[in-house]
Amino acid sequence: MSELTGGLSVASTKLAEIVGPEHVLQGDAIGARYTQDLWGGERIGDARLVVRPGTVEEVAAILRLCDGAGQPVVVQGGMTGLVGAGLPDANELVLSLERLDRVEDVDPTTRTMTVQAGVTLQAVQEIAAQHDLVFPLDLTSRGSCTIGGCVATNAGGNRVLLYGMTRELVLGVESVLADGTVVDGLHKLPKNNAGYDLKHLFIGTEGTLGVVTRAVLRLRPAPRTQQVAFCGVPSFDAAVALLHRLQADLPGMVSAFEAMWDSAYALVLPHRDEVRIPLAGRHPLYVLVECSGSDPGTDGDRFTAALAGCDELIAEAALGQEPVEVRELWRVRERIPAEALRIHPLFGFDVSLPTGYIAEYVERVEKDLRAHWPAVDLVVFGHLGDGNVHFAVLTGETTMEKKPLVEEIVYGNLAPYGGSISAEHGIGFEKRPYLRHTRKQAELDLMRRLKHALDPHGILGPGRVFPLEESP
Amino acid sequence: MSELTGGLSVASTKLAEIVGPEHVLQGDAIGARYTQDLWGGERIGDARLVVRPGTVEEVAAILRLCDGAGQPVVVQGGMTGLVGAGLPDANELVLSLERLDRVEDVDPTTRTMTVQAGVTLQAVQEIAAQHDLVFPLDLTSRGSCTIGGCVATNAGGNRVLLYGMTRELVLGVESVLADGTVVDGLHKLPKNNAGYDLKHLFIGTEGTLGVVTRAVLRLRPAPRTQQVAFCGVPSFDAAVALLHRLQADLPGMVSAFEAMWDSAYALVLPHRDEVRIPLAGRHPLYVLVECSGSDPGTDGDRFTAALAGCDELIAEAALGQEPVEVRELWRVRERIPAEALRIHPLFGFDVSLPTGYIAEYVERVEKDLRAHWPAVDLVVFGHLGDGNVHFAVLTGETTMEKKPLVEEIVYGNLAPYGGSISAEHGIGFEKRPYLRHTRKQAELDLMRRLKHALDPHGILGPGRVFPLEESP
Repeated sequence: MSELTGGLSVASTKLAEIVGPEHVLQGDAIGARYTQDLWGGERIGDARLVVRPGTVEEVAAILRLCDGAGQPVVVQGGMTGLVGAGLPDANELVLSLERLDRVEDVDPTTRTMTVQAGVTLQAVQEIAAQHDLVFPLDLTSRGSCTIGGCVATNAGGNRVLLYGMTRELVLGVESVLADGTVVDGLHKLPKNNAGYDLKHLFIGTEGTLGVVTRAVLRLRPAPRTQQVAFCGVPSFDAAVALLHRLQADLPGMVSAFEAMWDSAYALVLPHRDEVRIPLAGRHPLYVLVECSGSDPGTDGDRFTAALAGCDELIAEAALGQEPVEVRELWRVRERIPAEALRIHPLFGFDVSLPTGYIAEYVERVEKDLRAHWPAVDLVVFGHLGDGNVHFAVLTGETTMEKKPLVEEIVYGNLAPYGGSISAEHGIGFEKRPYLRHTRKQAELDLMRRLKHALDPHGILGPGRVFPLEESP
Repeated sequence: MSELTGGLSVASTKLAEIVGPEHVLQGDAIGARYTQDLWGGERIGDARLVVRPGTVEEVAAILRLCDGAGQPVVVQGGMTGLVGAGLPDANELVLSLERLDRVEDVDPTTRTMTVQAGVTLQAVQEIAAQHDLVFPLDLTSRGSCTIGGCVATNAGGNRVLLYGMTRELVLGVESVLADGTVVDGLHKLPKNNAGYDLKHLFIGTEGTLGVVTRAVLRLRPAPRTQQVAFCGVPSFDAAVALLHRLQADLPGMVSAFEAMWDSAYALVLPHRDEVRIPLAGRHPLYVLVECSGSDPGTDGDRFTAALAGCDELIAEAALGQEPVEVRELWRVRERIPAEALRIHPLFGFDVSLPTGYIAEYVERVEKDLRAHWPAVDLVVFGHLGDGNVHFAVLTGETTMEKKPLVEEIVYGNLAPYGGSISAEHGIGFEKRPYLRHTRKQAELDLMRRLKHALDPHGILGPGRVFPLEESP
């Protein structure tokens, strides 16, 4: 067994028999794409062996081999995750799905698209648009993130408010279990109560119960109009009131409601060369409202009338009705995470709680942090309409050492609101120590029971979400 | 152990210690509510012992006792199911959740309602309305069916088109596992990616993986306007075109699109004393379109303008804009299943397939049936907007003997369309032999693997959905 790579228990030659030698990478041939996520975070993985299957059958053969040998496997998509789930440990085989990149079927009759796991979200969006349809999932990382990753993490993003998370946008999933069994659940029907709905075992379980290889995506009719207002608002309560008023006045049309605290907006201001700043003044909070409709004749007037009716809730607004204007206003919002992810060391969070309490929660966190770091600053933004905010904590620290203290404060303050430590990013390694803040012991035990049932040798993404053996 | 009821392996005295003797029923004290479903079908259960817990802790204690003794249990809600899952076998303990009938919390901040499993759907609807909110799930059996049953069967109904099935309307579930473990997953957040989303283990699994004891329901703002048009249409294709046209013209507003073949409409005509017949003529097909909106000033005009724009697709229409008119038109549609369920012997079906192919499918089924029964008639109706039709087959048979032949034809014809043998009613006992028509072997194996993991002694609803041991 001289061909074994140090620490691994499957031989590269065996893998090469399955996928061909050119798709097994070792040593210097392993590029940064397999060891780092796209954000270039603090944590870097150690990849010794990478395999790139080209078919589902190859995925199955690889997993059969690994399951027999007790070889841990980490699945990789676009490496845009924020919780470290895709970063390999030295003893793990990297299973990259990058070659499963085919769009297999677009079916306007059922409004579905069937794609392989490695297809990017942006490719799906563009192909849907060619059929006058839309796949409503939308993330800033759309150009790199893959459908397999979106499914495995139940991705959220900008339009959950109107269309739901990935879970609601996927009709069927094909997965490969740890033992190599291919579970073909590529159903296309919105109503199907014929037995257990197995796709939920693979959606949002971060690759720990099976490898998602294909998905049937649910498409929607493309809206005929899309308008955006970028508003400076006088207070958090005004933003919430604006949300509810517009949802009531424009039912089924408010497709995004994004908020930015002034600290987040400030991150974009230095980049006027690349981003057009829409407002003249500064405000406590900014919101980007997107309205999607079907009537080019009247939607513009309806949207401006609805906004005019909320006059006292808006200090200043910029309206975008042409596609180029809409894109320009979105660019302000989208620049924020790009800038926030450049903060080092990054103490970043993604929490959810009932919308109305978000400002109170942020204030409590800030107050508790200030007891330790008097000059602390929070960069806050996110999907206000979904009760989901992201924030970065700037303590002035230069290392990650104090992160656990920050985390205790951030997560500890969620309890009175019934909040979640992860609205959309998942758990991975990053948030594992805090899962108890959100989930009961019986829930954790049941998760582990599922894991043992579907992956008895624990080869799939071991340690992601919860440790395999001890109490999490 | 003289107190053991024949065939059962837990003693009534042990159960009485848990729930009090008045809530353990035996012999003549067991009424028809525990042995028959509300439809009075051909199949009647045999209940020897009934236990009626009043708390979740009592449910847990009962299941612990049964799990230890290997005692099979059948859970009962409102007994409105159509696939026989709630009917007891003589060796099963009936676990009736009728006493878990409390609405525990209505939270307008999060737009949620937390209820115990035995609360009826109608009670939930009425309480939501008191808060100017709506729980959009709606079934003809609303007055009897319970939330526990709706969750366990992932109920569909009249407004799936706009709001989704029960799965989409439930944020959290509390369940008791076979071994008595209470899994409290009563989350209220629409976005929560903190670990596996366990509620999907209990939604739509027909009580075979756990007993649903509480649920957090997602409420929506009540629509301010509701209008209905009852239309006679010249053809199936006209009905589909009407659906797509109205959905495009009134996005987010078409909340129901129900179809009735003339054979179904004919069932209502003899009941003019109770149901006002809205149209003067007879047509190949009828549709009931419901439009829900938020603007009392303009919604009426928008709806009538949209209908007027579809003039060539509608032969005759009756419009209901006042609540009493809306209710009258719905009554026509709702009378149909009530009448269809009185057909004896009832060969009834609930299938889904891509909407555009429904008429073609029905014609193929009719043609194949006619080869055996030249005078066969099909009573067809259902949720056309969801690709879901119900139908009763009238062969002229007087016994159920030939049902398997009818079923083979009905289910066999689904394959070319990728259809499902159960859109919303579930599998239970009734459709178990045909699950293979819709699901792959690997899916069936995975269902069984889940069942063994969560209920290793097989005490929960044994034999529902699939047989425990052999290949299904």
